[in-house]
Amino acid sequence: MHKILIGVMGPGEPANATDLQAAYTLGQLIAQQGWVLVTGGRQVGVMDAASRGAQQAGGLTVGILPTADLSGISAAIDIPILTDMGNARNNINVLSSHVVLACGMGAGTASEIALALKAHKPVILLNADHQSQIFFKQLSQGSVLVASTPEAAIRVIQTRLD
Amino acid sequence: MHKILIGVMGPGEPANATDLQAAYTLGQLIAQQGWVLVTGGRQVGVMDAASRGAQQAGGLTVGILPTADLSGISAAIDIPILTDMGNARNNINVLSSHVVLACGMGAGTASEIALALKAHKPVILLNADHQSQIFFKQLSQGSVLVASTPEAAIRVIQTRLD
Amino acid sequence: MHKILIGVMGPGEPANATDLQAAYTLGQLIAQQGWVLVTGGRQVGVMDAASRGAQQAGGLTVGILPTADLSGISAAIDIPILTDMGNARNNINVLSSHVVLACGMGAGTASEIALALKAHKPVILLNADHQSQIFFKQLSQGSVLVASTPEAAIRVIQTRLD
Amino acid sequence: MHKILIGVMGPGEPANATDLQAAYTLGQLIAQQGWVLVTGGRQVGVMDAASRGAQQAGGLTVGILPTADLSGISAAIDIPILTDMGNARNNINVLSSHVVLACGMGAGTASEIALALKAHKPVILLNADHQSQIFFKQLSQGSVLVASTPEAAIRVIQTRLD
Repeated sequence: MHKILIGVMGPGEPANATDLQAAYTLGQLIAQQGWVLVTGGRQVGVMDAASRGAQQAGGLTVGILPTADLSGISAAIDIPILTDMGNARNNINVLSSHVVLACGMGAGTASEIALALKAHKPVILLNADHQSQIFFKQLSQGSVLVASTPEAAIRVIQTRLD
Repeated sequence: MHKILIGVMGPGEPANATDLQAAYTLGQLIAQQGWVLVTGGRQVGVMDAASRGAQQAGGLTVGILPTADLSGISAAIDIPILTDMGNARNNINVLSSHVVLACGMGAGTASEIALALKAHKPVILLNADHQSQIFFKQLSQGSVLVASTPEAAIRVIQTRLD
Repeated sequence: MHKILIGVMGPGEPANATDLQAAYTLGQLIAQQGWVLVTGGRQVGVMDAASRGAQQAGGLTVGILPTADLSGISAAIDIPILTDMGNARNNINVLSSHVVLACGMGAGTASEIALALKAHKPVILLNADHQSQIFFKQLSQGSVLVASTPEAAIRVIQTRLD
Repeated sequence: MHKILIGVMGPGEPANATDLQAAYTLGQLIAQQGWVLVTGGRQVGVMDAASRGAQQAGGLTVGILPTADLSGISAAIDIPILTDMGNARNNINVLSSHVVLACGMGAGTASEIALALKAHKPVILLNADHQSQIFFKQLSQGSVLVASTPEAAIRVIQTRLD
């Protein structure tokens, strides 16, 4: 049986404290479910916070990095996948995730949500501002979901995986 | 001297008549400037219309295709670049373009705009609905421009290339 | 601490019994060392055999797949990385591996050895015919190593990781 | 009608004078046939020499670059395709070429020949040493051809395109 991979995407730098706290909690909760965390793997922002949360809770973390080597990698990544593809690796993050959790918003995050929609992957928004919610709900014709807490996001995933 | 490549991105299918007409005109105007048109290369929607416009005006068209072969390619593509990378090729479209013109809106288009912002490429929106304009202006902190006609979009590019 | 990933590359189909047996043993030995196995992830040939060996020995297996979904994946893959990049994913296999073990020979395997040399990754050949050994030793100016058994290949890796 | 793209692949640096002269002549001959030249686009070795030859003869040159910007690009490239994918772009070079001409030998060149064989693309070797010829003929079960001069290589392509 293949493991279930859940992606957490969000701003690198700067990321605000609310996004970082939510990402850390998401990482913990994903690990507690026995799922594998997938992020962009870098030592910044949401991807680093989620990875630290997952590792603290004893989970497994995969980082799909834009680089050809380990420079800039989060210390909380167990399994580094080195792509040397820059932001084109965002498509791999999305395809490898059963569900994409977008925590906060930025240009990279927006590209991942849009690529997830192209790939018909479920997307859950957390901490997205009002304009971002309206934009992606309209773009997806309603298939993008919004969660108000990390716990609520996890419950949505559980429902989908049942 | 390397040629100047201008990207036109927009919905594949369905695309509405307004977007298709604007894309065709953009292709013509780009060709008349002596620039090379870059699109996603498929025989659908905005990318096909822009390529037909450019070819009608005697221009050169490059199509960066998601496939490993010529299946589904627009008949108006002079130079097919075959990536076999699916939507990850969107990043190549964007990087290869001096300026990205987004004509209409869809998930693929949104991914290209967001990837262009990550790469610090100029982006001009044409025919974008109000919500999309607000979203991308906010995401880019004002660097995304909005043009009201194809001719206005070309003038913006001319200014940038001077 | 990031885990140590070791790549096993080799023919898909057809693969001969000698290569399959060696790949299975390599997978077992890699798992027994506590290393993570990386392969191309498909349900064929050397990549499947190595993954089954690693999983039988309680190890963790990563499959970097050419596809956008799980079709054709080896049942012995724990962590599927979905690239949708066809054979361009061979470069990710190689970059993500601390050492590349080539077990047998074929066009895909040759591309991975050559890409590994470009990336200055250590390469160990197992079950390579005489011509292949001569070619890659010459191409690498001696940096490609040849092992006569899976156990010998593992000892070479241990030496390099010390 | 799509243009016919012919790829010339070969060592970057160092490349010897024989390979550089042959690459320059190949570029000229390709341009004289009305074909478009595809190379890896960098300002070194065989790719640069072939591009200069094609441009001298009035042909069109496409460079598929490993970088995200124009740094290191050959001055003789008309159409830069920026991939930011490092050596994974070798697969795009190969897929976009009707025929792959390998002029000289190196690790990158070997990866391109091997990827071309995976993609069932015709490959013609020029200036390959004896061991390389034997290796790739064996690997391809005879489908790789050897040409003794640039003119002979062009005649083989003409035959295939008829």
